[in-house]
Amino acid sequence: MRLFLLCLFLLLPAGQLLAADCAGCHDDRTPGIVDQWRQSAHARAGIGCADCHGEDHERILDGQVRVSATVCGRCHDREWRQHAASRHGLGLHSGWGCTRNLPGRDRNECAFCHRGGTALPVSTVNCARFLEQSSAMGQVGCNRCHQVENACGSCHGNHLTDLSIVRDPQVCAKCHMGPDHPQWEMWQTSQHGQLWRLKGEKVAPSCQGCHMPDGTHDVSGGIAHTPGGKSLADDLAPARREAMLDVCSRCHAASFVRRELERGDAVLAESRDLVEEAAELIEDLASRGLLRPMPEDRPPHPLRGKSLVLDGQMLYEDTSGIESLFFRLKKFAFAKTWKGAFHQNPAWAHWYGNAELKLLLEQIRSEADRLEHFATGEKAVSESQVDRTTSELDRLRREHERGRLDDAAYRKARTELLESWLKKDAP
Amino acid sequence: MRLFLLCLFLLLPAGQLLAADCAGCHDDRTPGIVDQWRQSAHARAGIGCADCHGEDHERILDGQVRVSATVCGRCHDREWRQHAASRHGLGLHSGWGCTRNLPGRDRNECAFCHRGGTALPVSTVNCARFLEQSSAMGQVGCNRCHQVENACGSCHGNHLTDLSIVRDPQVCAKCHMGPDHPQWEMWQTSQHGQLWRLKGEKVAPSCQGCHMPDGTHDVSGGIAHTPGGKSLADDLAPARREAMLDVCSRCHAASFVRRELERGDAVLAESRDLVEEAAELIEDLASRGLLRPMPEDRPPHPLRGKSLVLDGQMLYEDTSGIESLFFRLKKFAFAKTWKGAFHQNPAWAHWYGNAELKLLLEQIRSEADRLEHFATGEKAVSESQVDRTTSELDRLRREHERGRLDDAAYRKARTELLESWLKKDAP
Amino acid sequence: MRLFLLCLFLLLPAGQLLAADCAGCHDDRTPGIVDQWRQSAHARAGIGCADCHGEDHERILDGQVRVSATVCGRCHDREWRQHAASRHGLGLHSGWGCTRNLPGRDRNECAFCHRGGTALPVSTVNCARFLEQSSAMGQVGCNRCHQVENACGSCHGNHLTDLSIVRDPQVCAKCHMGPDHPQWEMWQTSQHGQLWRLKGEKVAPSCQGCHMPDGTHDVSGGIAHTPGGKSLADDLAPARREAMLDVCSRCHAASFVRRELERGDAVLAESRDLVEEAAELIEDLASRGLLRPMPEDRPPHPLRGKSLVLDGQMLYEDTSGIESLFFRLKKFAFAKTWKGAFHQNPAWAHWYGNAELKLLLEQIRSEADRLEHFATGEKAVSESQVDRTTSELDRLRREHERGRLDDAAYRKARTELLESWLKKDAP
Repeated sequence: MRLFLLCLFLLLPAGQLLAADCAGCHDDRTPGIVDQWRQSAHARAGIGCADCHGEDHERILDGQVRVSATVCGRCHDREWRQHAASRHGLGLHSGWGCTRNLPGRDRNECAFCHRGGTALPVSTVNCARFLEQSSAMGQVGCNRCHQVENACGSCHGNHLTDLSIVRDPQVCAKCHMGPDHPQWEMWQTSQHGQLWRLKGEKVAPSCQGCHMPDGTHDVSGGIAHTPGGKSLADDLAPARREAMLDVCSRCHAASFVRRELERGDAVLAESRDLVEEAAELIEDLASRGLLRPMPEDRPPHPLRGKSLVLDGQMLYEDTSGIESLFFRLKKFAFAKTWKGAFHQNPAWAHWYGNAELKLLLEQIRSEADRLEHFATGEKAVSESQVDRTTSELDRLRREHERGRLDDAAYRKARTELLESWLKKDAP
Repeated sequence: MRLFLLCLFLLLPAGQLLAADCAGCHDDRTPGIVDQWRQSAHARAGIGCADCHGEDHERILDGQVRVSATVCGRCHDREWRQHAASRHGLGLHSGWGCTRNLPGRDRNECAFCHRGGTALPVSTVNCARFLEQSSAMGQVGCNRCHQVENACGSCHGNHLTDLSIVRDPQVCAKCHMGPDHPQWEMWQTSQHGQLWRLKGEKVAPSCQGCHMPDGTHDVSGGIAHTPGGKSLADDLAPARREAMLDVCSRCHAASFVRRELERGDAVLAESRDLVEEAAELIEDLASRGLLRPMPEDRPPHPLRGKSLVLDGQMLYEDTSGIESLFFRLKKFAFAKTWKGAFHQNPAWAHWYGNAELKLLLEQIRSEADRLEHFATGEKAVSESQVDRTTSELDRLRREHERGRLDDAAYRKARTELLESWLKKDAP
Repeated sequence: MRLFLLCLFLLLPAGQLLAADCAGCHDDRTPGIVDQWRQSAHARAGIGCADCHGEDHERILDGQVRVSATVCGRCHDREWRQHAASRHGLGLHSGWGCTRNLPGRDRNECAFCHRGGTALPVSTVNCARFLEQSSAMGQVGCNRCHQVENACGSCHGNHLTDLSIVRDPQVCAKCHMGPDHPQWEMWQTSQHGQLWRLKGEKVAPSCQGCHMPDGTHDVSGGIAHTPGGKSLADDLAPARREAMLDVCSRCHAASFVRRELERGDAVLAESRDLVEEAAELIEDLASRGLLRPMPEDRPPHPLRGKSLVLDGQMLYEDTSGIESLFFRLKKFAFAKTWKGAFHQNPAWAHWYGNAELKLLLEQIRSEADRLEHFATGEKAVSESQVDRTTSELDRLRREHERGRLDDAAYRKARTELLESWLKKDAP
């Protein structure tokens, strides 16, 4: 009998024994968690507490042995590699990550984020906005989403790991929502979202349907742009676009798909021109020392010091009023415009995006007007007429460039403007 | 046998034969679409591809034979006529459509939008905001919703046409959402929306329950105002209001319904007064040449040329900072206030609507203050005291008009104000 | 036989007889309501129309005998007492209610809101924002939610009273949503909200799960702060926090719960510092007579007269542009920041909250800049350098206080700033 029990002991998976050990206390202390584990595929497969958490209870309590993606990757190697190679695997380094696929990038810079020639990220965070936050806000406001980089549980849950959870698009909503990337909101009221809700995946795609086709964890597969709307490098963008065309063509005619995605490209390009227009306006004010306050009179930017930062490392604090408006224009309205177009949501693309972007541009011009005349402090009416005429010429040129005015309309408007200027004042 | 087959051939609906022909390629090229059609009532009734698309594949590919509402109307004549007579049937002409039911309108102007004495719209678009957009934004941001005018598929879907889709209120959400008309959002968290979700149409109404009673496609049946909040003509508004009273009285006491709808009218009237207050402020600045820039110094409005436009044809671009604030006040906040009241949603009526409207009005006053003193450039403190006292008198008068001050409070406040003015300065 | 019928008559609950009387007309006039009552537990228990509405039909029509919470409390005494003792029971008096648990409060002030030593509120409303509204907006925008104080039907429904309605979290959404307290929105896309939707209350909590544990109607049980984010009195806050710890510990490890809630406290404290920074800026402008308009030049505040009001009684109308920005900062962005942290929603805590708060602070500084130089009207560049240096010192001090700069970083930044000032100008 003893021999039998000994064999039984040796044959029982170590995990289950240890799980029984943990459950002794944890059925009391964290009953919900133990309960969830018991229902999970891990329990059914004999994967117990120590298999993921280890056996050193002190180090667990101390937060020293977090169950990171590398732990899951011991068994789920393929998913871990797909994940690490995608944008999800570069979650908290997006300060660099946003720019990593730009054309002409110095490949030596990879070492800023990746360990020794691999795709695995180092632990240095390079997002200026994150570096500015307090510890508490950094944890609840930033890490809670960006931990996706290294915590499979952020989508899968920690103990329940029921696949029905990760197959529901609302799992993406925890992070992919909000003013800077409202994909959840956009998808929900789009035709896709409505039909999916009523008829399921056979009729319309969920997030997973388009972005994780066939369950791949490489969520970047069909994405041909950076999150900030820049094109990817020439050796990458076409393949990404082909991949997305394939996905859409599972339901739609190829010509229709091509047209729709190219329209998204057009919306992106036009909107990006408007963002650059706004940025140039602010850069011009800075070059003339007219921002209030100027960068040299503010706390330094955590990565760039005392300089004007309007790119992906832009802050939303310790800048100036006109830069606040620009932050909203670029980080919120621009994002909604082009991502709304790609998610086929007219209200988001047009009203929350395009209209908002243009309304903010007018408000930026007003604030620029105030700043321009602050320095002079004089009665500046005729001077401003000249200023505005010049910027009016620029505006016409840009509208022509982005296709809003055709050649004939452009020439006509330009002539009219110059003639009105000639009538009013001699420079 | 051959005779039998021949008769069978002749008896089979042409649609099915042609469908078989189309499916030969399209099962491969657009399998989702073919699949949806096969499940549809059209397929069961023998309506095949050619019945709607025609047989000329070249013209189909070229986009020359879109399946418009007139195609559906060949069989669904009643629904087509109801639809065309309603606001849904005037989707992209709302620049005129918003004003078509105003009192005293010159009926000859009907011809601007309608073909030869019918309710069918001509193809001229009269929305200035649409005319300003690039082709791409016009398609994805405007047409995608406004195609409702002439594409039954925009609600019904193109091939699946399952009635369960159009009977779910989320079908309306694709368009009736967003900052300018968030009916979906308002309904969702209202008592009606919550009860409908839990208990269904017998307990609380969906969008369709109130606005398409008994399945009518005339969605304007119970609507007594234009989308911009103006009253309809005297020969139209009472009938519309009675129709809505009937619908609400299916569940509620008639006296309750009347009170609720009249409260909505009151909220609309008060809020419209505030919008007019803001508009007058801007018109006054324009008349004194104080807008920066003035309309004559901007690109021309596509319908009105170089003039100030603050009505339904107002743009959100190429205006000025103060007009941007007004756009938000009128197009977004005002809409949320009164539509929130009619959709029985306190947070939308009050916080997203009323509070936002008043906050924006203060911001407009601040910007007006900046513009007013821009021209003078002098130390203008005492001058502004006089100006503000005058506008304070106006403000009191308006508050009295819209019922916020009763007679006694008005007389008291007015007297106090004039007395303080007399003490400070002689005009 | 007649005796039998008489006994039956006497034995039948009076409610049913009267219900039959009411239904005679109301089956026709308000069929939905009668239908709902018939399905309800009240009908099954023989509670009929007169039991709640009384028998005087004139007074009912006149609105004189509303079915208030005290009526329900006749039978549901425990729930009524729990409700009245909680914040739900002080719905429309929150002008005082927000401050009632502050430390050191004069207990005699209780009489402002409560009748004779009880927790039952008097009928005087003390919310300035409510007092400013028209009757129509006060009803639809304020009372519709704040009637929770005295109308059980506002959650339970008036006639259906099906418990499945109040056990669904969307019942809370009717009021607990919107820019000033978007708990519904926050919970929906949080981990809790997503898991609850897919797996139910056993896996994750609904609103009721955390805030009405075991069905208590004391919704304030686990709340350790006022709605405006101030700490409760020392004799109250610890017990409230313990109660919440208990609730969370039903699923989570106690140490995890404590950390999470203390992080919420930290986010609240830091954000409150920013709100105070903004308030001080405006108070400073007011003390120098620089607001446009000043409080003495505006309609009086309904409770405070002609004074600057930036606390819980702050208005969103008849103030000034800079106060409008502050209203949004405090009432909207600040609320979203800390409540988003406590509801475990990163996008709400960070983007809708924290980033918005800081963006608005920059806009407030810009408007302050305009106002500061309005009075002088001179070329004020060097003067502003000095001003801004001083406020820069203040800013560093605050950042140090709220933990964003540690001691070493603070000393370094402060030294650098003073040295740059010395180089530029002698005061």
